[in-house]
Amino acid sequence: MKICRVEKTLVATSRIGGLENRRLLVVKERGGGKQVAVDPVGCKPGDWVICVGSSAARDAAGSKDYPSDFTIVGIIDYWEETEEGNK
Amino acid sequence: MKICRVEKTLVATSRIGGLENRRLLVVKERGGGKQVAVDPVGCKPGDWVICVGSSAARDAAGSKDYPSDFTIVGIIDYWEETEEGNK
Amino acid sequence: MKICRVEKTLVATSRIGGLENRRLLVVKERGGGKQVAVDPVGCKPGDWVICVGSSAARDAAGSKDYPSDFTIVGIIDYWEETEEGNK
Amino acid sequence: MKICRVEKTLVATSRIGGLENRRLLVVKERGGGKQVAVDPVGCKPGDWVICVGSSAARDAAGSKDYPSDFTIVGIIDYWEETEEGNK
Amino acid sequence: MKICRVEKTLVATSRIGGLENRRLLVVKERGGGKQVAVDPVGCKPGDWVICVGSSAARDAAGSKDYPSDFTIVGIIDYWEETEEGNK
Repeated sequence: MKICRVEKTLVATSRIGGLENRRLLVVKERGGGKQVAVDPVGCKPGDWVICVGSSAARDAAGSKDYPSDFTIVGIIDYWEETEEGNK
Repeated sequence: MKICRVEKTLVATSRIGGLENRRLLVVKERGGGKQVAVDPVGCKPGDWVICVGSSAARDAAGSKDYPSDFTIVGIIDYWEETEEGNK
Repeated sequence: MKICRVEKTLVATSRIGGLENRRLLVVKERGGGKQVAVDPVGCKPGDWVICVGSSAARDAAGSKDYPSDFTIVGIIDYWEETEEGNK
Repeated sequence: MKICRVEKTLVATSRIGGLENRRLLVVKERGGGKQVAVDPVGCKPGDWVICVGSSAARDAAGSKDYPSDFTIVGIIDYWEETEEGNK
Repeated sequence: MKICRVEKTLVATSRIGGLENRRLLVVKERGGGKQVAVDPVGCKPGDWVICVGSSAARDAAGSKDYPSDFTIVGIIDYWEETEEGNK
């Protein structure tokens, strides 16, 4: 699973039906780029979170049929990020 | 899910039967390269979109058997891309 | 799906039974490295093709059980590659 | 499978139910970044381990439904890492 | 599928039961890093091989439930690697 930081909510009004009205967040991976994650946990901007990909992202979002490939599965209690730690 | 920008339609007349006659788009990932995505939403060049990969791309394209690994699932209402934001 | 260019046929006499005698091609991804793809379409060296990965590569190769993770699904009618376009 | 080194336990009290109370570890991939892996083996910081991704990570964590995309499947008996070997 | 070169056998005595006693090899991807692959073919150090990932790696290793995400599926008859070819 990846370690990411929550940036903000992403609004996408025009979407496929399968996405339903779940909350989508822009997250930034440690040392990587921005991605979009489904949030079934309830995060706020600035939270460090654990995101799961692959087929596990679907079950984690609530059902085997949900079309997600990146879903937040937990909020990290404490994460200290340093410049040199960003490797 | 990835944040991509739609470039143009891709024409591939010679294709496997499973692809059917779905519309394929060239999209460019933020800070990344060009890929081909199936478009069940109806996008136009310049749109910022959310693309899903993995097995979720198949259901998102319409059926569990569809041979896609990258499918557009929504159009982002507003995305401001800055040079420094391209990280 | 990825945009690749066909380089040549790859010969691998010693292989697992599941691969059967399907044709394997060396392809080079745009701006990336060489990979091996199964070719159910019938390509020739120099063709620009669309390759699918993930579990979709299996169905695209002909059956849900086929052990491929990269399969050609179509030949692009026209692709102009420029140096600056290789990003 | 990837070759990683165990760094420490990761605490994430707020998590989805599917994750249960399994132990999550921060691991660092050889020549790569930090990730989070489920540990069904029982590792300690400093161990060099083999981590599996994709859908195999789910079964490796104990069940087909477990939402992991990175699971430790074994501890390497002996791994000598040199600077030039980190490629 | 990826083009890799076999380096050596990897010993991991402490492992999950699902891995059974299959032979694990350290392989180095062309232009990439070292990974661990299951070897159902019978390779020797120095062989250039084709490795499959994703869910296909599981069937290739012998069963749908086998926890592999990287399995050798064939030995390349002839591969000439040059410095400039390593791209």
